[in-house]
Amino acid sequence: MKLYIAPRAPNPRRVQMFMHEKGLAGIELVPVDINAGEHWGAAYRAKVPVSRVPALELDDGRVLSETRAICTYLEGLHPEPNLMGVDFEERAFIEMHDRRAEWYWLLPIANAIRHTHPGLAPLEQPQFADFGRVQGQKVRESARWLDEALSRHPWVAGERFTIADITAFCAHEFARGLLKFKAGEEGFAALQAWRDRMAARPSAQAG
Amino acid sequence: MKLYIAPRAPNPRRVQMFMHEKGLAGIELVPVDINAGEHWGAAYRAKVPVSRVPALELDDGRVLSETRAICTYLEGLHPEPNLMGVDFEERAFIEMHDRRAEWYWLLPIANAIRHTHPGLAPLEQPQFADFGRVQGQKVRESARWLDEALSRHPWVAGERFTIADITAFCAHEFARGLLKFKAGEEGFAALQAWRDRMAARPSAQAG
Repeated sequence: MKLYIAPRAPNPRRVQMFMHEKGLAGIELVPVDINAGEHWGAAYRAKVPVSRVPALELDDGRVLSETRAICTYLEGLHPEPNLMGVDFEERAFIEMHDRRAEWYWLLPIANAIRHTHPGLAPLEQPQFADFGRVQGQKVRESARWLDEALSRHPWVAGERFTIADITAFCAHEFARGLLKFKAGEEGFAALQAWRDRMAARPSAQAG
Repeated sequence: MKLYIAPRAPNPRRVQMFMHEKGLAGIELVPVDINAGEHWGAAYRAKVPVSRVPALELDDGRVLSETRAICTYLEGLHPEPNLMGVDFEERAFIEMHDRRAEWYWLLPIANAIRHTHPGLAPLEQPQFADFGRVQGQKVRESARWLDEALSRHPWVAGERFTIADITAFCAHEFARGLLKFKAGEEGFAALQAWRDRMAARPSAQAG
């Protein structure tokens, strides 16, 4: 198998962190130069018609894209440690938390960065700076909800570490790097404490 | 169980169509007045802290939100007909197609509508009309990709009807109603033919 990635992008990092937590080393990493538009080129589009990273090329040549779908596949191949739920009921609740982290936390962070950061201009044309700034406000609204949740239970999906923590953490680090978001300084103490516990995991160095 | 919905919104419709395809009648539907902001009120937030519809309230009082997570739960309770994959490998590939339909088709459609349609102003403040118009262009780019895929295989995820068709169809009908998008008139013949087959399914009347 080969995993197509883009260094510093949050979605490939989610899969790399997931793999590290699973103890899956040895999958070949293939960097895609998204700043140069390599993902829009014919060679990559033949693999991933929607031009997104990450993507997992299987040994039989099929290509699976979409971060969470890749994780579903890897969890099936390597069930332990379980990160996505042991039965359909737990799977559904973890999926709920993972999607909340993705849609209401990662998405406004990505929008805010893509529409306001000069470094992202190659990837987002045209940039709408006013839209980006309002998305930055939504990042703070979501931080409030996440902080409140993390003040009640230690992990994003509840009592144990799951894929939802990986999603929320990779989003957080993207915001920390490019939006200069500092949870503690903005008054989100539980979010900051969780972030620091996450950053101490060896898998936080992956990707 | 009770399903909280908002009439005419695409995401509750996805769950209602999914339930119809599963033959699940009899789940109580509870309308939420999103135009009046009922989902932002304390009563609803106590159930769904992220203020989104749909949400499924279980008989034990727990509340599961997020369209696709609700479907994961219902598929587990009622495995037949299978709409999300029979094993982890098929589950992963269907999830990939479902996510593509959601992120690259439904999301630009929703953005285009929410930022340009006066009727959506209560739900999206401030509206950024220029951003919305560019999202409308992305809708056409995605239509090209979807049309090309549907010219090669009959259903969004390949050779059989799945949850990805439901996601893509509910998005299409949202665009058809509020963006006046007509696939056939814009030259997307395979997309139009698939849409017409979808619209003929009894489940298309749900939601």
